[in-house]
Amino acid sequence: MRTVDWQNNAVRLIDQRVLPGRFEVIDYTDYRELAKAITEMVVRGAPAIGAAGAFGMALAAQQSAARGRDGLLNDLAQAKAVLDAARPTAINLSWATNRVMTLAGHLVLPNPDDIRSAVLAEAQKIADEDVEINRRMAMHGAALIADGDTVLHHCNTGALATVDYGTALGAIRMAHEQGKRVHVLVDETRPRLQGARLTAWELKQLGVPFDLIADNAAGHFMYTGQVQAVFVGADRVAANGDVANKIGTYKLAVVAKENSVPFYVVAPTSTVDPSVPDGTHIPIEERPMDEVLGLETHGERVAPEGITARNPAFDVTPNRYVTAIVTENGVVRPPYGEGLRRAVRNV
Amino acid sequence: MRTVDWQNNAVRLIDQRVLPGRFEVIDYTDYRELAKAITEMVVRGAPAIGAAGAFGMALAAQQSAARGRDGLLNDLAQAKAVLDAARPTAINLSWATNRVMTLAGHLVLPNPDDIRSAVLAEAQKIADEDVEINRRMAMHGAALIADGDTVLHHCNTGALATVDYGTALGAIRMAHEQGKRVHVLVDETRPRLQGARLTAWELKQLGVPFDLIADNAAGHFMYTGQVQAVFVGADRVAANGDVANKIGTYKLAVVAKENSVPFYVVAPTSTVDPSVPDGTHIPIEERPMDEVLGLETHGERVAPEGITARNPAFDVTPNRYVTAIVTENGVVRPPYGEGLRRAVRNV
Repeated sequence: MRTVDWQNNAVRLIDQRVLPGRFEVIDYTDYRELAKAITEMVVRGAPAIGAAGAFGMALAAQQSAARGRDGLLNDLAQAKAVLDAARPTAINLSWATNRVMTLAGHLVLPNPDDIRSAVLAEAQKIADEDVEINRRMAMHGAALIADGDTVLHHCNTGALATVDYGTALGAIRMAHEQGKRVHVLVDETRPRLQGARLTAWELKQLGVPFDLIADNAAGHFMYTGQVQAVFVGADRVAANGDVANKIGTYKLAVVAKENSVPFYVVAPTSTVDPSVPDGTHIPIEERPMDEVLGLETHGERVAPEGITARNPAFDVTPNRYVTAIVTENGVVRPPYGEGLRRAVRNV
Repeated sequence: MRTVDWQNNAVRLIDQRVLPGRFEVIDYTDYRELAKAITEMVVRGAPAIGAAGAFGMALAAQQSAARGRDGLLNDLAQAKAVLDAARPTAINLSWATNRVMTLAGHLVLPNPDDIRSAVLAEAQKIADEDVEINRRMAMHGAALIADGDTVLHHCNTGALATVDYGTALGAIRMAHEQGKRVHVLVDETRPRLQGARLTAWELKQLGVPFDLIADNAAGHFMYTGQVQAVFVGADRVAANGDVANKIGTYKLAVVAKENSVPFYVVAPTSTVDPSVPDGTHIPIEERPMDEVLGLETHGERVAPEGITARNPAFDVTPNRYVTAIVTENGVVRPPYGEGLRRAVRNV
């Protein structure tokens, strides 16, 4: 099943907070509840929350009692503001809600029910396109992986981070499906442990050989020559190629460059934000400190009571550490400005 | 109380596996049980396991049924082999057992009980000296911390990692006691979480302001200019200044250098191993994979069943990333070869 799907007039999400211990799905019929689910990371991963946001707009259209076009557009604009605020760093969320909103605004249909149908169709299209885009990225990314490579991977960028298939993990998966022998070192990715919980779960099912490692160990494996490439996803790519991604990506990228290990970012063009000139302008979400003070997803307290934590959920990797950015429209290499513009326009 | 102490013919250790949830001590009267406790990290931290090893030799002397000098020396040599094998990376362990063994070998006392007494006295001396040495290191290290600094710290190097006071954390503690305003960013230090569990517990008691962070976040704070210095300890320093320390240290050091943040290693001269020309010759302990597959100390499983992990407990930081090595005999700066030789000889 898809990570994000529309089923019986509801948005169905795989609850990623309880994996791999339990596989549960939750249906949402209220866009506000869906926004809360995005904030609480029932669904996470930039492309997945993009699709979730688009379906959230379809929910809002369905919930709206408006009998006219203007009333419905007003309700949709309100829903968009709520959905966009659910998580600030990944641009895919507002990219998707923008796309739905723009379509709705351009429609000259007098009957609001026709607009409701069109909004749902556009959300469905965004979700369907995501699967197709992931496969195209995976083709480009897999070409960068050689038979016998050990690849280091951070966070989760697989089927669970997208509608299906995955971005960086999609490239690894496709290399495996092409018959290349690929071994993956899976960063556990504190504090939310997306690597230990989600990537390990996906790779196990796919039969891709891997070892889980503490994030701290990644440098040791690179320095001792055991890693041929690093593959990560992205939550937002600035116009100059600076990359906001899961906290810890920056450290990995610096150490990869120091050891001449190629550092690849796999992200759809919907993750590129041309309005942001460089990474310093990307908002960095700081999440609840409980995620660091304990094993938040398991309710286990580790640290002493009565202390504080800092918990930035993302960091920015300057473009000089990025070997290439793999999009559905091809592999972009430095200098990134013009290459990213061409990739976004697909020319 | 001291982290490692001799009480009523037993070695008394604070059980560091259960902190900060519980404060418990365990008494050991069998050196083999003590060696097991070192392996299982009831006690950890290079200087602390050095003192524990020395007291282990005193236990072995006490346990020995030998009625003559040669028999006792033979039993001590056997015990030394068992104790040294408890953990391979930190050199302080064999440094301390060597010191006790050398003393015992040089004694020309005919009565083995006199040798037993001398062995215990030497172990006690090693423990007492450790406290004094830590204070001297802390004085040198505190001078490198300015009023208002935010200092990043990895693993635990406090009183719990030594007999008392601490190495890198000792320097931070002394700067605080000198009235400097110091803020500490505490790496939680996966997989064993010595930062979240032990360093946080110590700093809270000392009243030093700090925030706990995921190891992944350290790069973000350095890149955004929020860190003035990194302070770490060491498990073994090669003759050329390469430093083996807790896994993750290497990543920190590379990122610190990239951001022009000074990277200080605080370690007694007993951590310097002149027999090892560079870091490539330092054995790196790989610990049980359960530490990575779950929150080992809390018995919590995180990752899916049936998968594997890699768990190197240490990494090597090449000397080019180290701004200075702070010893009890002064601050050594590059090039390290001659400086470390002089520090060890205290000339």
